[in-house]
Amino acid sequence: MSLSALQAPVARDEEKSSLVVDILTQRFGERCSRSQAVREQHGHTTTWLPNQAPDAVVFVESTEETAEVVRICAEHKVPVIPFGTGSSLEGHLNAPGGGISLDLSRMDAILQVNADDLDCRVQAGVTRKQLNSYLRDTGLFFPIDPGADASLGGMAATRASGTNAVRYGTMKDAVLGLTVVTPTGEIIHTGGRARKSAAGYDLTRLYVGSEGTLGVITELTVRLYGQPEAISGGVCPFPDIDSACKAVIATIQCGIPVARIEFLDTLQVKACNAYSKLELDEQPTLFLEFHGSDAGVREQAELFGAIAEDLGGGDFKWATQAEERTKLWSARHDAYWASFVLRPGAKGVATDVCVPISRLAECVTETSKDLEDAGLLAPIVGHVGDGNFHVLVLVDEDNPEEIAKTEAFVERLNWRAIELEGTCTGEHGVGQGKMKYLEREHGGGLDVMRSIKQALDPDNIMNPGKIVTMS
Amino acid sequence: MSLSALQAPVARDEEKSSLVVDILTQRFGERCSRSQAVREQHGHTTTWLPNQAPDAVVFVESTEETAEVVRICAEHKVPVIPFGTGSSLEGHLNAPGGGISLDLSRMDAILQVNADDLDCRVQAGVTRKQLNSYLRDTGLFFPIDPGADASLGGMAATRASGTNAVRYGTMKDAVLGLTVVTPTGEIIHTGGRARKSAAGYDLTRLYVGSEGTLGVITELTVRLYGQPEAISGGVCPFPDIDSACKAVIATIQCGIPVARIEFLDTLQVKACNAYSKLELDEQPTLFLEFHGSDAGVREQAELFGAIAEDLGGGDFKWATQAEERTKLWSARHDAYWASFVLRPGAKGVATDVCVPISRLAECVTETSKDLEDAGLLAPIVGHVGDGNFHVLVLVDEDNPEEIAKTEAFVERLNWRAIELEGTCTGEHGVGQGKMKYLEREHGGGLDVMRSIKQALDPDNIMNPGKIVTMS
Repeated sequence: MSLSALQAPVARDEEKSSLVVDILTQRFGERCSRSQAVREQHGHTTTWLPNQAPDAVVFVESTEETAEVVRICAEHKVPVIPFGTGSSLEGHLNAPGGGISLDLSRMDAILQVNADDLDCRVQAGVTRKQLNSYLRDTGLFFPIDPGADASLGGMAATRASGTNAVRYGTMKDAVLGLTVVTPTGEIIHTGGRARKSAAGYDLTRLYVGSEGTLGVITELTVRLYGQPEAISGGVCPFPDIDSACKAVIATIQCGIPVARIEFLDTLQVKACNAYSKLELDEQPTLFLEFHGSDAGVREQAELFGAIAEDLGGGDFKWATQAEERTKLWSARHDAYWASFVLRPGAKGVATDVCVPISRLAECVTETSKDLEDAGLLAPIVGHVGDGNFHVLVLVDEDNPEEIAKTEAFVERLNWRAIELEGTCTGEHGVGQGKMKYLEREHGGGLDVMRSIKQALDPDNIMNPGKIVTMS
Repeated sequence: MSLSALQAPVARDEEKSSLVVDILTQRFGERCSRSQAVREQHGHTTTWLPNQAPDAVVFVESTEETAEVVRICAEHKVPVIPFGTGSSLEGHLNAPGGGISLDLSRMDAILQVNADDLDCRVQAGVTRKQLNSYLRDTGLFFPIDPGADASLGGMAATRASGTNAVRYGTMKDAVLGLTVVTPTGEIIHTGGRARKSAAGYDLTRLYVGSEGTLGVITELTVRLYGQPEAISGGVCPFPDIDSACKAVIATIQCGIPVARIEFLDTLQVKACNAYSKLELDEQPTLFLEFHGSDAGVREQAELFGAIAEDLGGGDFKWATQAEERTKLWSARHDAYWASFVLRPGAKGVATDVCVPISRLAECVTETSKDLEDAGLLAPIVGHVGDGNFHVLVLVDEDNPEEIAKTEAFVERLNWRAIELEGTCTGEHGVGQGKMKYLEREHGGGLDVMRSIKQALDPDNIMNPGKIVTMS
């Protein structure tokens, strides 16, 4: 199988696309770019999936402009691919049928912070770090933290999560309401600011994770949390993968409200030591963080300590100073980049799966053995409190044999996760790369997804060739 | 306006319905009932909305039987109305177009408890109390607790919540996966057992809250929680509604992880004293419960105590004994029934709204004044940690003037909540009673809901005349 076999073909009409580009150029001037470099940068760039550049990129500055672009594209049945920061990992941004990349990065206004209600409204291009910088003095924070400094619109579109999800949930839980431009260019508002509602179909949750295939998210109302009174955390090495995973399972089962519990395999620890100048023991390791009151975090840490000791965990090294903690978690967030020190010049094949936590030890152990048997170099890192982990296979792009081996491994990993009652993606989303697994995972549910797509976007202009194929 | 104006008309084909009833009688024998009493009991019975009985009731015993009934009805385009325990409050179960009530109450098997993963799989007819009785010895519990002992299928269908939602979320959060019979009689599975997934459209959340209009939920995988190590709680009276609401707001804003925080106005406290033999001060009152470790609940209670004191709250009366707590919370759960002691023989008009918590004091105070001005007798009770509250207007059904006044009040309440950035229903759902508010609340989003309904149920056989009207 070649890589491009993961990319579903989408019909392309050069003439119509060219007409739309002309119209948009007239309307948006320099904010409509046809430059080769800009176009390629707006296709898929983060992994080895081949880049499929759009025909032009429009930099919109408002919901109304977004609606205008979508209406023009809809009229001529030309694809629209929403773009946030370009950090997605499964080819979400590729333009297999050409069309317009709709770049929302200039829509970066924080519109309203309702400290009393612990929520805020932002434009889709606001990034998670930008929002948290803005919130710093309010005593509030936004907890969802995927690896990249992604835009909130993109994070909602891919149902992103991150290291805090075990305690604070994913974008599914964080988003209270959305402003969406529909495939016909209408502007609608979903959800609202009430904490709960039973007033009709949950359109918010339908758009969260729809990857731009049902419309363009232009604004979001998201939940915020009070910055915890106390934070503590640290690092605990384990003799093997199994005992580290078992410590995670026990922690969750005991109901310890851990804020973060992250697994790094030996290879990943090595990479982080080199890249982020840490001096961790090179063993399977958990990074932990506890949020609460002073007494609360002490209690949580003691409970975890007892669990770790029972499972042969090494010394639990406390990072009590804020700088020490920041260094640790920066290293964790840089794990993706750190991995490349293991094989400079390699391309990374990032893949993520998620299983029920009772199957985690089994799934990670089998995967690790699978990698060894296949002779692949691939650190494993995971948001293991949710049963979610990532494998980054480091591949020589010019070696077809390695590529074939890697593809076969990724396939086995995905089937394995589904077999263990898990999912082919915990947080990266489907894009182009995971479409082939959806039928086995969802069965007839995939037909329901297709019916919804067909109903809301009958001309298949919204990010075509992602999640579901249309006839 | 008359009450039946709330009930959207639905086309009715007596001949086809009669044919389908014959087919079902042949197939299901005594499990297909045409008895007048059974039919009426399967229409709406809980409030004053007029009863619209189905043409027959089929008691199914499996997902396959459910699919069979739906396929027969689909073939003849006859309505299907799923029925759990009959405790919905907005006319969800009425059969304005006749058709078949599909009673799932005999599907009451608990199929699998995965203690390691804190989840379980149940048939849709399992009730919340049945599940918690079953779980008692496992150390786990299921937290969602609407007033009635509803079925989990019905609770998912209406996106139910209850007193624990402030800490444990609603059915939106509790459901991991569903088995659904689609309007064409296909059996699909949504979601799964992984804690999170980014694999395509969130069909689980689409079906949760869809009130039987997109298919029949026959099985559910739901999240469970460890029974807290320690529980404490109590009762705190306040001088007025405003200070009670402000105490709630402060509690949420401080991030106290309160498990339950319930408001009862003076009238409701009077009713509960009489009905449940309590001796509470007859003032606006909060019922509270804290879950955690011994130290944790002590800390939470102290923090709350300080807030209450600042706001003029009276003595916080602790219910430290389990029996005392059970008595209190039974009284809270019986508040609906207790209300009728205030006016024996009256009919209850139950309505619920939900607003951002910063608007709660304003909304409850205005509503209380509105009731007083209108001369209506109506206790107010609420899951105020979520900004959600209920008003139960006690009405003489035979007094048209009172009925008109009540209807006008309910309308004002719903517009008020929407005006305050809230929703026309926090947890009861839309059914027939709240349809008229959806356009103002959702705007163009309502068209998207209609498109989804049209796509998945083009013949409008699934619980027609609820949530959206079809052309």
